[in-house]
Amino acid sequence: MTRLPRLNPAVARTRRAVREALAGAGSAPGAGEGLVLVALSGGADSLALAAAVAFEAPRLGLEAGAAIVDHGLQPDSAGVSEEAAAAARGLGLDPVTVERVSVPGNSEAGPEGAAREARYAALEGVRSGLGARLILTAHTRDDQAEQVLLALARGSGARSLAGIPRRRGPILRPFLELDRSTTEAACAAQGLSPWRDPHNSDAGYARVRVRDRILPVLEAELGPGIAAALARTAELAREDAEAFDDMVAETIEEIVEPAEAGIAVSVAALAANPAALRHRLIRAVAAAEFGSHLSREHTLAISALVTDWRGQGPIHVPGISVARSGGLIVFTAHR
Amino acid sequence: MTRLPRLNPAVARTRRAVREALAGAGSAPGAGEGLVLVALSGGADSLALAAAVAFEAPRLGLEAGAAIVDHGLQPDSAGVSEEAAAAARGLGLDPVTVERVSVPGNSEAGPEGAAREARYAALEGVRSGLGARLILTAHTRDDQAEQVLLALARGSGARSLAGIPRRRGPILRPFLELDRSTTEAACAAQGLSPWRDPHNSDAGYARVRVRDRILPVLEAELGPGIAAALARTAELAREDAEAFDDMVAETIEEIVEPAEAGIAVSVAALAANPAALRHRLIRAVAAAEFGSHLSREHTLAISALVTDWRGQGPIHVPGISVARSGGLIVFTAHR
Repeated sequence: MTRLPRLNPAVARTRRAVREALAGAGSAPGAGEGLVLVALSGGADSLALAAAVAFEAPRLGLEAGAAIVDHGLQPDSAGVSEEAAAAARGLGLDPVTVERVSVPGNSEAGPEGAAREARYAALEGVRSGLGARLILTAHTRDDQAEQVLLALARGSGARSLAGIPRRRGPILRPFLELDRSTTEAACAAQGLSPWRDPHNSDAGYARVRVRDRILPVLEAELGPGIAAALARTAELAREDAEAFDDMVAETIEEIVEPAEAGIAVSVAALAANPAALRHRLIRAVAAAEFGSHLSREHTLAISALVTDWRGQGPIHVPGISVARSGGLIVFTAHR
Repeated sequence: MTRLPRLNPAVARTRRAVREALAGAGSAPGAGEGLVLVALSGGADSLALAAAVAFEAPRLGLEAGAAIVDHGLQPDSAGVSEEAAAAARGLGLDPVTVERVSVPGNSEAGPEGAAREARYAALEGVRSGLGARLILTAHTRDDQAEQVLLALARGSGARSLAGIPRRRGPILRPFLELDRSTTEAACAAQGLSPWRDPHNSDAGYARVRVRDRILPVLEAELGPGIAAALARTAELAREDAEAFDDMVAETIEEIVEPAEAGIAVSVAALAANPAALRHRLIRAVAAAEFGSHLSREHTLAISALVTDWRGQGPIHVPGISVARSGGLIVFTAHR
């Protein structure tokens, strides 16, 4: 009897994660047909993903390609992109595209946010251009832990703590339960040489400080399970945020009505809901009707018109005046 | 015109916090009558609280005393308690009680949990014995931040992230929005010498490591607002947890029914609720009917009987077997 070569456990884990994610996304064996794209930077995470997808996709009856986005932010970015493309072709991915984007320097979203927006827009352009079903990104549990800690540092609620979703539209993230060390080991075992993004060691980025200076301290002081614990927190927060999103969507149409120069919400309806939902309804009205993102303090001041009414005057928040008038809370555009 | 001596700002903040907390707890000026007790350890937080309560309570028509709990965990604990009692009397608090408790060494709650349980039981005994309305404890925003980080390290949901409540039954915490540095400054400004609990620098405690080694790193890397951000996260999580608690309480009676040797819940009712509520309903049934606290993994396995039914067999969790039978999920005590 021939002894089968033993598959490296890190490689096995990356392949299983891809197989399960594609099956969960409706690409079960035999469901067949269609193209999936790996979003590839050339770093260890996305290179390991590209290798696992190149192996698994044909077995599920899928074609697999790679989409590389060149942000043009570093002098050698074109060369890095070409090397990533060559690696993808070497793994048998086809088609392999390289898209050059320009990242606005003065975006409201900050430099990291602007690069992310440009990247996802480019990926979506490639996906729809090629008629691909899914884009797979290589975010790991470490990315998730970093995201949760950044949300905490802002003092954010469930939506923000929810971190990076496993699936959003055509974006699928098979590695969210794997550690970064697994993707690195998988690359090494398959003879793949990942690119080291110099931005990943630039302490000017909060995310890099979380990765290099905070998570190691948390691990040392509270135990090695911290990334998994943060990921579990994110999962629980995601469930909560989704439930509240549904409740807001179900409730909001019923309780708002047009008012002179604005929109009104019934005091009784707001009062009947728990604070968690009342505050989300107030924020949703401000965002949907006026494009205004209320701070916690402003939300509480408006909520006090409902729950702590002592005849106080209108609340002025960016772009909106909010006043109680009879049984209504009236939102008016601020002149 | 006489120039008034300027009140130290830290002292002013502790007094205002006490005044607002007592007013919010229904002890507005003139509401009068009744005794409030400060839970006093002799540390900076509770000593500053004792001083602020001694000043404010008479102005609100309240009497103020102090309750000191001697845990007997340190050789000089009786002496420490007597010094705290002397300080309380010096501030004009009356009555001042010292209660010696014995902390079980092998509690399921761990050493910190066992001491906390014994302390709150003793405080409640003193409160009801004296007919006091409230017990005031001196937890600060720093305690809250530590609590949230400990919850994160466990990977907990909203209930746990909610941290320390401002009010629970007769327990009121006026200092939850003050920093520890404020209580220390208030003690110094009033010539009060706080006791330094040696446990507070014992790195054997996770809470001490969070305080001394983690929060300073978070502050250095992410900015000085981290304690406030964690406290805001706790506040948002508390609202969410309370909303879900209400929904569970409203729903659970309607959807459970007795079953042979157990209890049953309608599949359709569980399926109709979002995951956040479905999982909490499952946990609530296990806790209320069987005293069993389900892990995340067990909760998801039971939930899959509803949402991912493929004829799988009963799920065995500590103390309970859970099986799908027709349109019901049946919980049975495990033999």
